[in-house]
Amino acid sequence: MGMAPIAHVLWGKYMKYNPSNPKWWNRDRFVLSNGHACALQYVLLHLSGFKEYSMEQLQKFRQVGSKCPGHPENILVDGGIEVTTGPLGQGIGNAVGLAIAEAHLAASFNKPDFEIFNNFTYVFCGDGCLQEGVSCEASSVAGHLGLGKLILFYDDNHITIDGETDLSFSEDVLKRYESYGWHTQFVADGDNDIAAIAAALEAAQKVTDKPSIIKVRTTIGKGSSKQGTEKVHGSPLGAEEIVKVKKLFGFPEDKSFYVPDDVKQVYDQIIPKGQAAEDKWNDMYKSYSSKYPKEAAELARRMSNKLPENWRSCLPTFKPEDAAKATRQHSETVINAIAGTIPELIGGSADLNPSTLSYIKSSGDFQKGTHEGRNIRFGVREHGMASICNGIMGYGGLVSYGSTFLNFIGYAMGAVRLSALSHFGVIYVMTHDSIGLGEDGPTHQPIESLMAVRATPNILLLRPADGNETSGAYAVAIESHSRPSVLALSRQAIPNLKGSSIEGVFKGAYVLQDAEGGKPDVSIVGTGSEVSLAVEAAALLQKDHNLKVRVISMPSWELFREQSSEYQQSVFLEDVPVLAVEAASHVGWGEFSHASVAMHSFGHSGPAKDVFIKYGFTAKNVSEKALKLVDFYKGRKAGSLVVKPF
Amino acid sequence: MGMAPIAHVLWGKYMKYNPSNPKWWNRDRFVLSNGHACALQYVLLHLSGFKEYSMEQLQKFRQVGSKCPGHPENILVDGGIEVTTGPLGQGIGNAVGLAIAEAHLAASFNKPDFEIFNNFTYVFCGDGCLQEGVSCEASSVAGHLGLGKLILFYDDNHITIDGETDLSFSEDVLKRYESYGWHTQFVADGDNDIAAIAAALEAAQKVTDKPSIIKVRTTIGKGSSKQGTEKVHGSPLGAEEIVKVKKLFGFPEDKSFYVPDDVKQVYDQIIPKGQAAEDKWNDMYKSYSSKYPKEAAELARRMSNKLPENWRSCLPTFKPEDAAKATRQHSETVINAIAGTIPELIGGSADLNPSTLSYIKSSGDFQKGTHEGRNIRFGVREHGMASICNGIMGYGGLVSYGSTFLNFIGYAMGAVRLSALSHFGVIYVMTHDSIGLGEDGPTHQPIESLMAVRATPNILLLRPADGNETSGAYAVAIESHSRPSVLALSRQAIPNLKGSSIEGVFKGAYVLQDAEGGKPDVSIVGTGSEVSLAVEAAALLQKDHNLKVRVISMPSWELFREQSSEYQQSVFLEDVPVLAVEAASHVGWGEFSHASVAMHSFGHSGPAKDVFIKYGFTAKNVSEKALKLVDFYKGRKAGSLVVKPF
Repeated sequence: MGMAPIAHVLWGKYMKYNPSNPKWWNRDRFVLSNGHACALQYVLLHLSGFKEYSMEQLQKFRQVGSKCPGHPENILVDGGIEVTTGPLGQGIGNAVGLAIAEAHLAASFNKPDFEIFNNFTYVFCGDGCLQEGVSCEASSVAGHLGLGKLILFYDDNHITIDGETDLSFSEDVLKRYESYGWHTQFVADGDNDIAAIAAALEAAQKVTDKPSIIKVRTTIGKGSSKQGTEKVHGSPLGAEEIVKVKKLFGFPEDKSFYVPDDVKQVYDQIIPKGQAAEDKWNDMYKSYSSKYPKEAAELARRMSNKLPENWRSCLPTFKPEDAAKATRQHSETVINAIAGTIPELIGGSADLNPSTLSYIKSSGDFQKGTHEGRNIRFGVREHGMASICNGIMGYGGLVSYGSTFLNFIGYAMGAVRLSALSHFGVIYVMTHDSIGLGEDGPTHQPIESLMAVRATPNILLLRPADGNETSGAYAVAIESHSRPSVLALSRQAIPNLKGSSIEGVFKGAYVLQDAEGGKPDVSIVGTGSEVSLAVEAAALLQKDHNLKVRVISMPSWELFREQSSEYQQSVFLEDVPVLAVEAASHVGWGEFSHASVAMHSFGHSGPAKDVFIKYGFTAKNVSEKALKLVDFYKGRKAGSLVVKPF
Repeated sequence: MGMAPIAHVLWGKYMKYNPSNPKWWNRDRFVLSNGHACALQYVLLHLSGFKEYSMEQLQKFRQVGSKCPGHPENILVDGGIEVTTGPLGQGIGNAVGLAIAEAHLAASFNKPDFEIFNNFTYVFCGDGCLQEGVSCEASSVAGHLGLGKLILFYDDNHITIDGETDLSFSEDVLKRYESYGWHTQFVADGDNDIAAIAAALEAAQKVTDKPSIIKVRTTIGKGSSKQGTEKVHGSPLGAEEIVKVKKLFGFPEDKSFYVPDDVKQVYDQIIPKGQAAEDKWNDMYKSYSSKYPKEAAELARRMSNKLPENWRSCLPTFKPEDAAKATRQHSETVINAIAGTIPELIGGSADLNPSTLSYIKSSGDFQKGTHEGRNIRFGVREHGMASICNGIMGYGGLVSYGSTFLNFIGYAMGAVRLSALSHFGVIYVMTHDSIGLGEDGPTHQPIESLMAVRATPNILLLRPADGNETSGAYAVAIESHSRPSVLALSRQAIPNLKGSSIEGVFKGAYVLQDAEGGKPDVSIVGTGSEVSLAVEAAALLQKDHNLKVRVISMPSWELFREQSSEYQQSVFLEDVPVLAVEAASHVGWGEFSHASVAMHSFGHSGPAKDVFIKYGFTAKNVSEKALKLVDFYKGRKAGSLVVKPF
């Protein structure tokens, strides 16, 4: 209710959009970062004529099966909601990503007289969003990059869930945004002064070298007797109160889910206005297509999320005799090998380029004045980075990636889970993926990170074992447009394995090497840098104990679960005990093994080799544990890990 | 090298500490937020006479078994390192917590003429720390609270790992800190102008109503030919370069790990000076103890981490006939029941008091001017909250807690894992712990959170099933001083269960109810709000299928793993198939069950009951799945889930 005047000014007059085609490429983007106020957004979508937002849908607000859930979800509708918001602060990061995408595509595709991309990104936010670190990070990036088409409305209603904002929030927000390099404005009476809101909006549009924030003083629950208090933040007004509010604003008291005629008349003009704007743009795009057919074809491909044909042929492959390298080094090779074929790939690291090796060498930096650059310098801002990557995916036509040490996914999970929930195929290039990072010590050695990702729905964890599997991991990630991927990559060098393959990665797990002469006595399943250790242990077991050992490489649990039951049973054989080896938390391995060599504590600072020895990641220890496992299952049935009761 | 002059001014002259007693209560606290510069801190600890930092230890820098790991770890030494730092930004949050602790204990225990607590908290940080959202959140809190004894030195060296800071960081930092309400100063020549550094430090000490930031322009790698470049950020200088640097500063070129006599003479004065300061304080404390014996005894108890005797007697217990309530409501009851007995409990929520119900009603707010208050208003700042809670624990004498929705632990994991690594028994009161939160929808419904915590070492996940178990969860958490706890609490009401107990929680898992008449046909293990569902399903199975069903309540995997093998086998019986029920990710349950009714996707917005139906959390579905499990194990051996090969 408090933001309704701002929303009316924006949606009713200034925003460029066509409800008949919610996916028009050059529409202005709108993000409701304070997603709990989504009733407002659903009403605006309904009023302005988005077909999916029927009155029936509005009536099913927050019910199972509704397109109007408790917070806006982009995946429930075909347009109208650009990004999924609600977890506070994310919308601001997403909006920065949307504005980066617009700037990059404009720099890449616009031509003199052809402004194919020139939309604004508008965001609404409240105090909560501004308190969150993720928004602070993203806002600092936006100021640094000078994203002139990003306009943020700050609903300054002085109320949070707990009460007055001055309980915990007494900073000078506009001064802070000035320090970031933003253009700042203040509207003193956001409840009534429509003209001032409009004037501020126009002024913001004219500032093209800086993002804009407009602080608008509003009254929460405007019109109710509880207005201006926390009592209208999360709780319904109640029937009596609603009647009062309707009276105040001159609406019929007895009608609910009702649009008065005068309101209807105003909003009925939106569709023709939006259609006219798009028609004009379509004419331009038609001329563009004839003048620049190559660019237009490329753009059409990208905006429809199609990959170039035979794109996989650019993926490098490796032989066992190739030099042992860290998978982060293979990752650098692969990124740069595919960067030409996949020009929609854009991303960067959280100030770790020399370590995560994720720079696209054939392109330059995305900076103020060089928006065609594909390398984004996110700074030491992991959460902001992930949130921005989501926004870039939300725009369309691009594939975003973000890179840091795997351990610091713990700083960013709030946004990473939203990649998964939003079906945004962001690629997280996470290096230094185990205690094998060595000297930096346990503050930087991930233990729980792999499992935290594996426990998240709709996201792929890919932990490649060598060069071929790194190629495979990128192949999966690039082709996975509606599911994000986390690539877990080693700091330390590991050999290229006999039998490894790109195709194997697509299956999630596969038999890397098998014992000759019948059914194995034991299988060792490993991921990433521990697969080569499994191979070594298998050799020891064969040599010293004459055991038949199968080695399974398992780069992705998620992909393996999606294989046929037959295939699964051909990898994990019935009554063959399985030992897992992974230099990360043991928790979770019960699903795919009978016992594990894994971490039960945090790691330790020291050279990688010594740290591996300390925690038992040696061929000797793995082979000893495998022997114990074999002994244990003498006289017991190991059963099947993949045949399930339901 | 760039921060050495600042460090020399602080450690050599201004900081109040006694290397002979690193745990002196009223020492100034020092935090190296840019923990990668820890060589500096280890050298200072050595020079000033901390016994654990022998030359031999310095020589083992970054080696297995050393007290000088790659980033400072508080747990490796008995004092000298207040908090574990390295993950950027955390140290600033920790310092805010340390300053809050000092202010609170001073307000609680100081008396006229007895300043038992009056120390400063000093922090060093670099650009990276300031870019991180966690530091932004904590700094805003610090400004709001007016923490006058917090002094932050910002090492402004213009260099990050990637290169010049202006690649990604062009904001006006001091202006930003002004917007937070901090006192700001700038020292233009931090390489040489010792007097200016000292003057700024003295000025900062005199500002008692605001925290202070001193931006000091320095040169990274000062003295080497690579000074002022990113080449000296993470890489060693090399032998030749080191010789040059030694020449420049007049050190003997051929000596390493060597302290020149003149340096030694200066730092040899630290111990007597520190001892004198502590002696003076000891005299005062002696008088305090005779004048205020009760306060002194209480303080001694708290500072030694001892709980009051028989403290558990204040824990409420519940009967099955007591009203069904949400465990967050029980949590409110328990917090307020123990708040009087455990006055060291201090904490708050991330602006969710009306929802997480974690306010201590017998106390007031901790605000500027009311530092005796035990309720901290963290604002919508989860990561900052967790980081501050760590700092409070690091001070001693207090038990901190932080509260938000469980899902938003994903915003805070960077700090939560540091609670675990640092052995800080922070209590995380996390409510709305499953899809059972209902209408807010999947953006707020945790799926992966439980498993992310379970996969983290040295932290307890406690998911109580009713009132008694909520009491039990707090009993465990309060008594767990060196291990943090995450309490997962329901939004929705659940009945009090027959057989539930406080003692059961201490065992991690226990038989809540058993079938009569011999060995069970099947066990159902549940946690939290799904235990009552397991009880209902058991009744159905018994009634409709005449099956003998055991119900196991499993509030904590971690505690259960620590029980004797005999006990574990008495709960999870050999060859009895186990079905797990938990309204969260299925991943991980393979350790304690043969199959599960759990989540394989994100949830959905809707009333809790409908959402539970949608995902199969009904007695009917659970009983059907149990039947399938029983059928599956006809002719197969289920084996034992707790008897292990090694």
